[in-house]
Amino acid sequence: MAPWKAARVGDHIDQIDTPALVLELDAFERNMSRLQDAVSSAGVRLRPHAKSHKCPEIALRQIQMGAVGICCQKVSEAAVFVDAGISDILITNQVVGEKKVAHALDLAARARIGVLVDHEDQISAFARASAERQIPIDIYLEIDVGMGRCGVVSIERAVAMAQQIDAAPYLNFMGLQCYHGSAQHYRLPEERQQAITAVCAKAAAAKAAIEGVGIQVERISGAGTGSVMLESHSKLFNEVQAGSYILMDRDYATNQRDPNDLPFEHALFVKTAVLSHPSANRAVVDAGLKASSVDSGMPVVWKRTDAKYLKASDEHGVLELAPDSTLGLGDYLLLVPGHCDPTVNLYDELIAIRGDRVEAIWPVAARGALL
Amino acid sequence: MAPWKAARVGDHIDQIDTPALVLELDAFERNMSRLQDAVSSAGVRLRPHAKSHKCPEIALRQIQMGAVGICCQKVSEAAVFVDAGISDILITNQVVGEKKVAHALDLAARARIGVLVDHEDQISAFARASAERQIPIDIYLEIDVGMGRCGVVSIERAVAMAQQIDAAPYLNFMGLQCYHGSAQHYRLPEERQQAITAVCAKAAAAKAAIEGVGIQVERISGAGTGSVMLESHSKLFNEVQAGSYILMDRDYATNQRDPNDLPFEHALFVKTAVLSHPSANRAVVDAGLKASSVDSGMPVVWKRTDAKYLKASDEHGVLELAPDSTLGLGDYLLLVPGHCDPTVNLYDELIAIRGDRVEAIWPVAARGALL
Repeated sequence: MAPWKAARVGDHIDQIDTPALVLELDAFERNMSRLQDAVSSAGVRLRPHAKSHKCPEIALRQIQMGAVGICCQKVSEAAVFVDAGISDILITNQVVGEKKVAHALDLAARARIGVLVDHEDQISAFARASAERQIPIDIYLEIDVGMGRCGVVSIERAVAMAQQIDAAPYLNFMGLQCYHGSAQHYRLPEERQQAITAVCAKAAAAKAAIEGVGIQVERISGAGTGSVMLESHSKLFNEVQAGSYILMDRDYATNQRDPNDLPFEHALFVKTAVLSHPSANRAVVDAGLKASSVDSGMPVVWKRTDAKYLKASDEHGVLELAPDSTLGLGDYLLLVPGHCDPTVNLYDELIAIRGDRVEAIWPVAARGALL
Repeated sequence: MAPWKAARVGDHIDQIDTPALVLELDAFERNMSRLQDAVSSAGVRLRPHAKSHKCPEIALRQIQMGAVGICCQKVSEAAVFVDAGISDILITNQVVGEKKVAHALDLAARARIGVLVDHEDQISAFARASAERQIPIDIYLEIDVGMGRCGVVSIERAVAMAQQIDAAPYLNFMGLQCYHGSAQHYRLPEERQQAITAVCAKAAAAKAAIEGVGIQVERISGAGTGSVMLESHSKLFNEVQAGSYILMDRDYATNQRDPNDLPFEHALFVKTAVLSHPSANRAVVDAGLKASSVDSGMPVVWKRTDAKYLKASDEHGVLELAPDSTLGLGDYLLLVPGHCDPTVNLYDELIAIRGDRVEAIWPVAARGALL
């Protein structure tokens, strides 16, 4: 990491060195309360996903506002949040391998921890290790509700796996993980509605079959920022897992909204400056693909119509300038990243601003926690 | 970062936790000596680019083998290498803004430092600050040799800028930066040859014009892994800057080689394991786009024909399996990343293996050094 800091608390936004990751606190707080209020009104638990922000300061604020805990995607990521005092974490991923199972149980001895399973061998591994160490852990059965990534496909197999979990003394069968990741990015509200209707049908069928053999399905959890109010109003899901809603990237903003969708605002920006201005219609900024992840497309220039971010190389971003552009060498602008999760994961710190002042600097403590 | 390590020195490769970044030392060392020998034989200086590896342990080995110094892309990245004892660094980028100029001069007081310019205002800023602090610094004029990113386009302007540099007492005008980034990835040898012929014509014209006003152009520097032997044999370039050659990603391997191109080998891998195996033809591994950058396409599975990496989400990679695939839950495989530079930048450590044992663990010390 850089041997010096991009900013100090109290700095004016003009003084923040570039490129830097900037969190606009007013918009962030509005996003945070907007979803918490809406989900609470629907009588549903909010367990926001921390893979988007990787920042304990944010997780603590989400919980203070009413979240029941957080989601993580990796055991080592969860460990960072347990160390920071978060006491209830669902790892929304399969945890495979002796080392990883042991680390998950280490955490389960210190906090309430859940993991997903979608294979009998994962259940046996956790059943054995949890019994040996006498550490209980929550288990959620992941159902493939249409995404075609992880998750059990056959209902018969899901029922048998629920029984296998139920029979293991230190495994708490909590319920179902029913997440449809691709549906989050379907552009039209009716496409998302249709996908989540199908998700609910699959989730309901799995729940009925498992409860049919006498095993209670306490929790149905899932959803992301693109569909969260659909699951919240489904009368089936009782927990939702959106993550990006607090930050909002360019990709999510491309979704067309209908009145059911909450008006989340962009709160995450990459501050970048012009390092080269070789011709009237071109400027080059110091934020390339190591500063703003391009996996979901290029970032967009925030609140300027005279510059368009055309392409990224490792450390350069090429802007096309309008003929009347006033953007000059050394000038800065803000970019809305194409995809917030992998962009946040490039930085060691989030520079939290209120108005035009740096109010706080928060470590992205779980950045690079891949294991 | 993760609160525990993926591996320890002496571990068998089977024991390395996943996902992890693995450097195969034998292939790495062959790549390193292969280019050093070829460039030295051509009578040209090798100044390898450290933006690809961000690792002082690698830079020190490159210099021990004959490199004249290294390139960096950011001032803060260069600072990490100066701290590690590297004494000659060319920052192949424009350095703009009072803070950045001051940091560059701090480094120039401790090591030989060069920076690029392509605008009169950059020269004035360095002229003023270097004179004030009486710290000399090397200046290279970047010429746009066809890439259309940074660099001076007009020869007249280049000459005037060389004079401006020459007139500043603490600025050493060293010569020209003539890098064509996109040409590195032209797939056919004749396309690369054609592009570098054009590069050389532009570089030669700029050199002649600047020397025509009595200013010596000591250095013409540039090239990348895709074209490095073309510049090396150009009789015009006297320094080359390839970086990826030691690691070799999927994208560079897609270039068709001709006999002039050196047979660099893949030396950088992401070790990943199967965390879900929901159906006979699909497995999901624990390396997604936070573990292997997808900006230049998906990673490829190394030395296995029964599995193809289809798509990445943040923490998942979906593999399509052949009907006879034996890949099971918990099994691991190696991926060749699509693009090495941003992939290395995701990790805190490089796990260096020889044969099937971990020989060393090297910090990616300049990871995230964006400023």
